[in-house]
Amino acid sequence: MNSNRRILLKQRPQGMPTPDDFAIVEAPVPALGADEVLVRNRFLSLDPYMRGQMDGGKSYIQAIEIGDVMNGHTVGEVVESKNAAFAPGDLVWGPGHWQEYAVLKSPPLRKITGSHSPSAWLGPMGLPGWTAYVGLFDLGAPKPGETIVVSSATGAVGALVGQLAKRYGLRTVGIAGGEAKCRYAVDELGYDVCVDYKSSDFPAALAAACPTGVDIDFENVGGAILDAVWPLLNSHARVIICGLMAQYNLKTKYPGPELTHLLKSRLTIRGFIISDYAGRFPEAIAQMSARLASGEIKIREDITDGIENAPSAFIGMLQGRNFGKTIVRIG
Amino acid sequence: MNSNRRILLKQRPQGMPTPDDFAIVEAPVPALGADEVLVRNRFLSLDPYMRGQMDGGKSYIQAIEIGDVMNGHTVGEVVESKNAAFAPGDLVWGPGHWQEYAVLKSPPLRKITGSHSPSAWLGPMGLPGWTAYVGLFDLGAPKPGETIVVSSATGAVGALVGQLAKRYGLRTVGIAGGEAKCRYAVDELGYDVCVDYKSSDFPAALAAACPTGVDIDFENVGGAILDAVWPLLNSHARVIICGLMAQYNLKTKYPGPELTHLLKSRLTIRGFIISDYAGRFPEAIAQMSARLASGEIKIREDITDGIENAPSAFIGMLQGRNFGKTIVRIG
Repeated sequence: MNSNRRILLKQRPQGMPTPDDFAIVEAPVPALGADEVLVRNRFLSLDPYMRGQMDGGKSYIQAIEIGDVMNGHTVGEVVESKNAAFAPGDLVWGPGHWQEYAVLKSPPLRKITGSHSPSAWLGPMGLPGWTAYVGLFDLGAPKPGETIVVSSATGAVGALVGQLAKRYGLRTVGIAGGEAKCRYAVDELGYDVCVDYKSSDFPAALAAACPTGVDIDFENVGGAILDAVWPLLNSHARVIICGLMAQYNLKTKYPGPELTHLLKSRLTIRGFIISDYAGRFPEAIAQMSARLASGEIKIREDITDGIENAPSAFIGMLQGRNFGKTIVRIG
Repeated sequence: MNSNRRILLKQRPQGMPTPDDFAIVEAPVPALGADEVLVRNRFLSLDPYMRGQMDGGKSYIQAIEIGDVMNGHTVGEVVESKNAAFAPGDLVWGPGHWQEYAVLKSPPLRKITGSHSPSAWLGPMGLPGWTAYVGLFDLGAPKPGETIVVSSATGAVGALVGQLAKRYGLRTVGIAGGEAKCRYAVDELGYDVCVDYKSSDFPAALAAACPTGVDIDFENVGGAILDAVWPLLNSHARVIICGLMAQYNLKTKYPGPELTHLLKSRLTIRGFIISDYAGRFPEAIAQMSARLASGEIKIREDITDGIENAPSAFIGMLQGRNFGKTIVRIG
């Protein structure tokens, strides 16, 4: 048996993470206990929420402790099993973390079946799909004809939200960084319009893209992006805070939006973490699966090879250098 | 017939209103049209939300235009009627505004019956009672055993929220200005504890008063009060923005609360204006009436005599100088 290369949290980042915040170690592959399954990870999902976990803090239930393996979901292959439901060669999905081998039980380990590509289980068939579906339909309470703004419009979650919302009859306004992403958002993902947040006149361009205001803000970024959306929000608008990518790496607190508008326009802002919605997983994934199979949902992946490159791929994603769902291919 | 003294909005306030922002005029009492009722106002309710209306702005549907009479609810007596449902001498409730006489139709005019004191219709039986009931139960979604913080704890709405919440089984933490109000909050209104926001160690005192954190913030004040509540909010806490008294008179925008805590703790902040909940009025007022009759709900009124003194009473209320529901007794 090979040894197991693992990426640990070495120290808590100060602002934007650096490679020094991570350690790569080689550890023996643990022996299996009763009902356990040994998984060789093939694909690791990198997601912005992991930045929050690196900070720790008592209010965040999923914080990663210093010295622990970095958490994440993987798709892998069973290489050894003491659980009758899993056999070597089975393709599986679960919290395999930033490492080559994981020892898991079921649940949370699930067998993957069907015709989707294995890495789709880290996108529309996994946490991003679950997040997009529940965030849009349960928290957003969309009505056809409304306008939704989606920041990080081509990212793992945003690209799915935009496609779901468009098909549901909303006017969809994406926000992304750079002309290539904006063109992809409109041409491939079907956004009605996409605004480049790197342009010098971004707030004015966003306002022009939303002539009847904004009813739902699906917020993955926060910071100056949310500041530009805020004055455009219509009465009874919903702001779903799914991520605050622009704020995770700040050393000082970014001030929140001014609340007089919230009161006068009866806005709602909600923080949203998908793990609170376990009961909605089956419907969400069934819906995403059907739409993926029918071609209604398109995906784009940004793949980096080698577990040792996970930290740099993660940092690149936090800097907006990814284009599509960020995935590490292992081994 | 006497002439009708009326208080108009003369100019939009810059920060805290001053007497110069209002004009008092004498106008003839208008003749009645079909179905109209002439009401002699007896009690006028003064409420913080009126400060927002004075600012105008397109997103605020109830803005008061310059030169218009200041809006407000009154209890009065019918002196003349062209509507068969109202007769001279009837006690009525409606949007009689800041003036001695009002010409109204039904609806919105309603006849008052029952044994409550007339001015109670400007408190627990009127907008404050409706606001407290719907805000607490519909938006707050309280669960017995949770902790609620109520700012402006002895004010028109806050005093009712605190009493309703205590009876529902919540731990109730009031915030008020000065020792007398805090003592009244605990001794008369039944708060478990009340914290004086004027004390030098206010944030620490509030934290000490909430050893298990805060599940609901019924926010009437905003500003530094909300800043002190914010870090105490538990996972899934609800912040109901009913008023932002501390922010209405600022000339610059007060920064909102930092949203990383909102995301990590899955908080919800909602702006709330009671006129959106017309369908909930009957239940709310029936419930408040029963509790007022049984003595479960106590009220305290801060009464100023004379319509000409409405502006100074209003300014005093915005400065926190009232103690109880602010009411002007007319004529």
